[in-house]
Amino acid sequence: MTKTVPDVVARRLPRYYRYLGELVGQGVSRISSRSLSEKMKVTASQIRQDLNCFGGFGQQGYGYNVYELYSAIGEILGLNNRYRMIVVGAGNVGRAVANYTGFRLRGFVIEAIFDISPELIGGSINGIPILDSAELGAYCREHSPHIAAMAVPRGAAEELARTLEENGIKGIWNFSHVDLDCSVPVETVHMSDSLMTLSYRMANPNK
Amino acid sequence: MTKTVPDVVARRLPRYYRYLGELVGQGVSRISSRSLSEKMKVTASQIRQDLNCFGGFGQQGYGYNVYELYSAIGEILGLNNRYRMIVVGAGNVGRAVANYTGFRLRGFVIEAIFDISPELIGGSINGIPILDSAELGAYCREHSPHIAAMAVPRGAAEELARTLEENGIKGIWNFSHVDLDCSVPVETVHMSDSLMTLSYRMANPNK
Repeated sequence: MTKTVPDVVARRLPRYYRYLGELVGQGVSRISSRSLSEKMKVTASQIRQDLNCFGGFGQQGYGYNVYELYSAIGEILGLNNRYRMIVVGAGNVGRAVANYTGFRLRGFVIEAIFDISPELIGGSINGIPILDSAELGAYCREHSPHIAAMAVPRGAAEELARTLEENGIKGIWNFSHVDLDCSVPVETVHMSDSLMTLSYRMANPNK
Repeated sequence: MTKTVPDVVARRLPRYYRYLGELVGQGVSRISSRSLSEKMKVTASQIRQDLNCFGGFGQQGYGYNVYELYSAIGEILGLNNRYRMIVVGAGNVGRAVANYTGFRLRGFVIEAIFDISPELIGGSINGIPILDSAELGAYCREHSPHIAAMAVPRGAAEELARTLEENGIKGIWNFSHVDLDCSVPVETVHMSDSLMTLSYRMANPNK
């Protein structure tokens, strides 16, 4: 696994992982690249090419061992690590993240939520304590969380990202409507980009 | 504009649109493809290629007219349409969508929210009424909303999507953790895929 993996391939891996997880759940033990491709609406040769980036899986005419492939992709995705997370911002998006229990199953454990609102500080969401944002840096130095989910207003995002970086955060999952320039990996969920893509597809149905 | 536009190019357009909107806001009237590429972290030739999919913009050595390009991309994205939207599901994600006022500026106007909870029905979020999900089909037939943002539990998503489709919805913006099989355009925000991509990038820093 010394080859560089194109970003588009890396971005398809979570989807493969989700589908394979469903197959594992259904007790399917083998699948042909053709069936997998029909399920996933990607060509069979695309799947073979993508998986070849990570070494050989499956055999010609015999298909993939579902569980083996699922585990291997999970390992590539780093999902056998356990990530300790914090959520910065206890608004609607922060709450949605804190309440979604599916992340925990995949090894992402949320340990604290931060907000500036005196009415929220001291409370909890889904059993996770809400702490004062003023203590964010000190908390990071003491507890070394790996990932921060940032769901704060646009104007506050850059300063908070700097605080997180300076205090050792390893990755930022960004829901604020701004592109962050950080030295650690940042993955931004641009909700409005996604809505514009929908608009594009509605306006250009034949493209 | 008779050429087919690759999906990856279409997906970059919202980003171009966002950046150009910022430049418009800053009063910048011209930009070279090089400056635009530095801002956007895409190569200048990539930008030129992408924009060539939509006919000619800009001139060699003279750069792009920012407002012209911004308007043209907005038109390609279908943003000069006014879209009437509904939100299905008044949980945290539905609330976040209903509360985000930025969509309205781009022509997406939310007119109703639907939920099954008797405690929520009859109330409102951000001035938008919460109606009974049982009336979703009848509402769609009467008011013909264009887009439904679906933020409901996984188990309820497919049936609701069918109800929406059968009653004339034109596009679905899907936040439920499931891939929908619909005849109308569906754009899914897979939050967990994005978190897995972050994990991948943290686990594979040099790829």
